[in-house]
Amino acid sequence: MIRVDFAEAKRTMEAALLRSGFVRERAALSASLFAVASLEGVYTHGLERFPRFVEFIAKGWVDPVAEPVLVSAVGALERWDGRLGPGNLNALTAMDRACALARDSGIGCVALGNTNHWMRGGQYGLRAAENGCIGLCWTNTTPNLPAWGGLDNVLGNNPLVMAVPRADGPVLLDMALSQFSWGKMEAYAARGEELPVAGGWDEAGSLSRDARAVAGTRRAVPVGFWKGSGLSLLLDLVGAILTGGASVGGVGQRGSEHGLGQVFVAFDPALLPDEGRVAEAVEEMASRVHGSRPVSPGQRVRFPGESRLVVREENLAKGIPLREELWAEIRSLG
Amino acid sequence: MIRVDFAEAKRTMEAALLRSGFVRERAALSASLFAVASLEGVYTHGLERFPRFVEFIAKGWVDPVAEPVLVSAVGALERWDGRLGPGNLNALTAMDRACALARDSGIGCVALGNTNHWMRGGQYGLRAAENGCIGLCWTNTTPNLPAWGGLDNVLGNNPLVMAVPRADGPVLLDMALSQFSWGKMEAYAARGEELPVAGGWDEAGSLSRDARAVAGTRRAVPVGFWKGSGLSLLLDLVGAILTGGASVGGVGQRGSEHGLGQVFVAFDPALLPDEGRVAEAVEEMASRVHGSRPVSPGQRVRFPGESRLVVREENLAKGIPLREELWAEIRSLG
Repeated sequence: MIRVDFAEAKRTMEAALLRSGFVRERAALSASLFAVASLEGVYTHGLERFPRFVEFIAKGWVDPVAEPVLVSAVGALERWDGRLGPGNLNALTAMDRACALARDSGIGCVALGNTNHWMRGGQYGLRAAENGCIGLCWTNTTPNLPAWGGLDNVLGNNPLVMAVPRADGPVLLDMALSQFSWGKMEAYAARGEELPVAGGWDEAGSLSRDARAVAGTRRAVPVGFWKGSGLSLLLDLVGAILTGGASVGGVGQRGSEHGLGQVFVAFDPALLPDEGRVAEAVEEMASRVHGSRPVSPGQRVRFPGESRLVVREENLAKGIPLREELWAEIRSLG
Repeated sequence: MIRVDFAEAKRTMEAALLRSGFVRERAALSASLFAVASLEGVYTHGLERFPRFVEFIAKGWVDPVAEPVLVSAVGALERWDGRLGPGNLNALTAMDRACALARDSGIGCVALGNTNHWMRGGQYGLRAAENGCIGLCWTNTTPNLPAWGGLDNVLGNNPLVMAVPRADGPVLLDMALSQFSWGKMEAYAARGEELPVAGGWDEAGSLSRDARAVAGTRRAVPVGFWKGSGLSLLLDLVGAILTGGASVGGVGQRGSEHGLGQVFVAFDPALLPDEGRVAEAVEEMASRVHGSRPVSPGQRVRFPGESRLVVREENLAKGIPLREELWAEIRSLG
């Protein structure tokens, strides 16, 4: 592991994106989203993911100059076509638009079809919060999760994001619907460590904490077993209807994870009586969670998103930790 | 176990509600919702729950004549005050109103504060689907789930419902965010059976499939462990802001589960291009799920809500199965 200065990481990726056909302003924004993901500790969807993103551009699966266009609008619900543009830029545009709709209608929704992997989903929750809105969004994925009672991966792990504005950094939930991402399971397997809870099924069909055994069957477990299986299926189905684009099944037929569907919902609390008393509600929640006796004495119970700024401060000061080979690879692209 | 004719069950509960202060039309509707829940196999929130509902009326926690009133409206987002009326009638009104908003704006949201337990949440998803809409709704509860890393029950199991219209009966997800409800765990404990997966923690602080051990600590496990803990917290926080009502913390201070907050969101696909091609999306999903090889040979993999009408037909023909003492108790109320 080495550490790389945030500004340098950003600059290097920006150069790579310019070489890949991005125009300057969009290269800067996209590179910044990758760099901030790593800066805030979401390493799997930051620099770690960047070379694959550049590869997807080279393969024609991501069009660096495509911008999303409006397909249909009625009231507070809009459908947009992502035109296979960069997933992170498309998603940012979509959440901004959902917030603009919410500013007029209290609630707004943008269904974005034909788009690409949004990388770190939490980013769009944070963006909603920056806009003063409550954000709720989800994406579909390639088929990577079995339906409950089935052997084949017919569902996606369809990450789901929720965020609520807060002065000291939003409350932020960013969760995929598999218990562990494949990236996390690979890390456990590489370290030879047991998963903290069952991550999937082994060859014998038993739930297993052995990440290598689960990698062998490719049968990961949904959060809450049958419950996450159902939630994954409904999120994808609703997304397919609202976007008019590919379901997880349709994405699977493409053979690579592109052409996804995403749904962005924003609520504007400023339009509620007393502007929703957001800070009050957040503080009540925080003091309730913090007041809980911890399982491990001395460790404070935390709410989702609470550690983000701590990691950010550390990585800003010391640099973003990453594998030396990865940094060499990213530099070779710039 | 005995079996009771659906119409007789409904009539008996209607009589009990009339004696409890309901007006005729509302007694009929509320009794019907309780009877249909049991008819369709959701026994825990049908007849099984009815005596407690009558008790809550007697205690003044549910006001049988209160109807929800509009508090604030902006565009497609409305806040309503449930005035501690019957939770099932309030929720039905709220989902109907969310659908009416969606008919104008594509999406609509009703945040309902100061209401009561909605009993079977799936009912409001089904109602959205009857209205031709996609439904998404959730409720908070009394504190009954620990936050991840904590010992105390500071979160609710906050049931979440999603439904999509389908000619042969909607796709319907109705899930609480605990892996098992306390009712289900009691049933396992009574039968002396092991839970199929861990349901909570035992005295030693280990995850356990022993329902009695979990009942001893009252520490149930959220779906997906840390993930469901986060989702529960966010749903409640968003609900508290939108409704302006009590969070799970506020409900806990009341000492009994009343004065809840619920959020109802509807999307009207009829306003999308090609009316969202709902049937097509649903059939693609169904054939994908059904095409999955089953874990148990010969058993078809199913999607959420698929078995509902099978149970309904059986119970319509044979009567609703219930405990003899329970039926005697309900009859004594009527």
